[in-house]
Amino acid sequence: MSFDLQNYLRDRKELIDRGLDRYLPRESRHPEIIHKAVRHSVFAGGKRLRPVLLLAGYELFQDDYKRALGFACAVEMLHTYSLIHDDLPAMDNDDFRRGVASSHKLFGEAIAILAGDALQAEAFGLMARSGLESGFSPKTVLDAISDLADAAGMKGMVSGQALDMETQGKSYSEKELEFIHLHKTGALIRASIVTGARLAGGDEKALAALSGFGLKIGLAFQVADDVLDVKGGESLGKPAGSDQKKKKATYVELFGLNRAKGLAGSLISESLELIRDFGTRGEPLRLLARFMVERVN
Amino acid sequence: MSFDLQNYLRDRKELIDRGLDRYLPRESRHPEIIHKAVRHSVFAGGKRLRPVLLLAGYELFQDDYKRALGFACAVEMLHTYSLIHDDLPAMDNDDFRRGVASSHKLFGEAIAILAGDALQAEAFGLMARSGLESGFSPKTVLDAISDLADAAGMKGMVSGQALDMETQGKSYSEKELEFIHLHKTGALIRASIVTGARLAGGDEKALAALSGFGLKIGLAFQVADDVLDVKGGESLGKPAGSDQKKKKATYVELFGLNRAKGLAGSLISESLELIRDFGTRGEPLRLLARFMVERVN
Repeated sequence: MSFDLQNYLRDRKELIDRGLDRYLPRESRHPEIIHKAVRHSVFAGGKRLRPVLLLAGYELFQDDYKRALGFACAVEMLHTYSLIHDDLPAMDNDDFRRGVASSHKLFGEAIAILAGDALQAEAFGLMARSGLESGFSPKTVLDAISDLADAAGMKGMVSGQALDMETQGKSYSEKELEFIHLHKTGALIRASIVTGARLAGGDEKALAALSGFGLKIGLAFQVADDVLDVKGGESLGKPAGSDQKKKKATYVELFGLNRAKGLAGSLISESLELIRDFGTRGEPLRLLARFMVERVN
Repeated sequence: MSFDLQNYLRDRKELIDRGLDRYLPRESRHPEIIHKAVRHSVFAGGKRLRPVLLLAGYELFQDDYKRALGFACAVEMLHTYSLIHDDLPAMDNDDFRRGVASSHKLFGEAIAILAGDALQAEAFGLMARSGLESGFSPKTVLDAISDLADAAGMKGMVSGQALDMETQGKSYSEKELEFIHLHKTGALIRASIVTGARLAGGDEKALAALSGFGLKIGLAFQVADDVLDVKGGESLGKPAGSDQKKKKATYVELFGLNRAKGLAGSLISESLELIRDFGTRGEPLRLLARFMVERVN
């Protein structure tokens, strides 16, 4: 029987949504506005790609993937925090995300900044607590926390977004554009997959291969996003050409539409090469890699 | 020989400053602006009160306090991140902090938001790494991370700042004011002391006593700050009466100057009662508690 990706994605997304609902404090907690703001953004219709990838990384080595649910929800919290802050007026100034009003539009800038801050703290607390509760080796959990902190901070997302802000409206090189996307998008996707595999007992060689795989599909995903922005994809929940309007650095602007499409395809081929050795257990990851760029064709 | 607090504070501050310099990435790293912004705020003249308290909590049980330096620097990073975000135009809109230009004035709002975000990630990564390197039990390190994440997130600082924003310019109750300060200031001070004691092997009873102590001195510190704001203390590095101008909830407005001063004094007396059993090893903590409010008399 062939692997059914749509079913797989639906099942995993349901599991992750239930986990997020359980791990986040109730909306009725005092002060309500911050708890409402956090839940608004977390449940604003994300595909849960990073936590799905984390669970797929785990399943390369172990079957009981539900054990990694706490970490899966934690990477979604990190991702959601970064989206809330990226949308702020001082950053990309986006009023909508996936067709839903962004945090600062609904709750004001101060609460939006705090909701992002809260989700980052919550993510690291959840890793520590769920790591202990799920009975993983504390040393492994600490290694995972350290890696995910690097992915979120100055070695990852923050530096990507900082350079993105600095190059806006300016000329930029291919190297700078690659730096932005490898850090802004690639770092957390990489760390998600590696964390899943690490928790499931993957060895250093496997983690290194998955690290390379994650960076390549992360970059491919972002190239695909640039292509989709020009084509006006509905799934982005924002008007076509909005990157161009903001004078954002994009692969389409640098390479043109066709070469950008080709680059996304090559990156996926290269990424699949890196995980060839995982055999049938690697099938979900392979399909997920293709799924991440297929929207552009 | 009596304990010399000024020497003690100077020694500890030097140690912490050297630690922060070692743990933070160089300014010359790419992209430079984010690394410069992070270092600007971390080295903008803080008293290092929270890390000093963490080391004092450690010294209640063990002598080799330098072993806890990673955690001490991590709580200072959490504190600095919260100051950067509190100063933003969407929050308190402060152009100066301790007489030095605030992050958003020097680097712009986007980079200031990112510098705060980076410091939070860096803090949790440092806890995980230095916890392992210093040879603490990984389980103890995970408990400490979980506690500090609560202190930083929706159970702590974030909720305090959120309610502070919500009550600005409105009428507020004593209960709301206490909630704000216990969460905004008390939570991280409490967690700093408890973390030090936890890493040094303090038992549950000791941690509970220190938790109560930390919340009380945290609240006293904030009451003293409100008093000082009215009196126009130089050490705040901002003009006298700036809380009032912003229509901030303060103890002086609620109680008047004299009753606010009295409250700070009572809180310190109550806090000292809670750590009476620690004998001579508790002396630095006792002097630190008094030091935190003595500025107002």
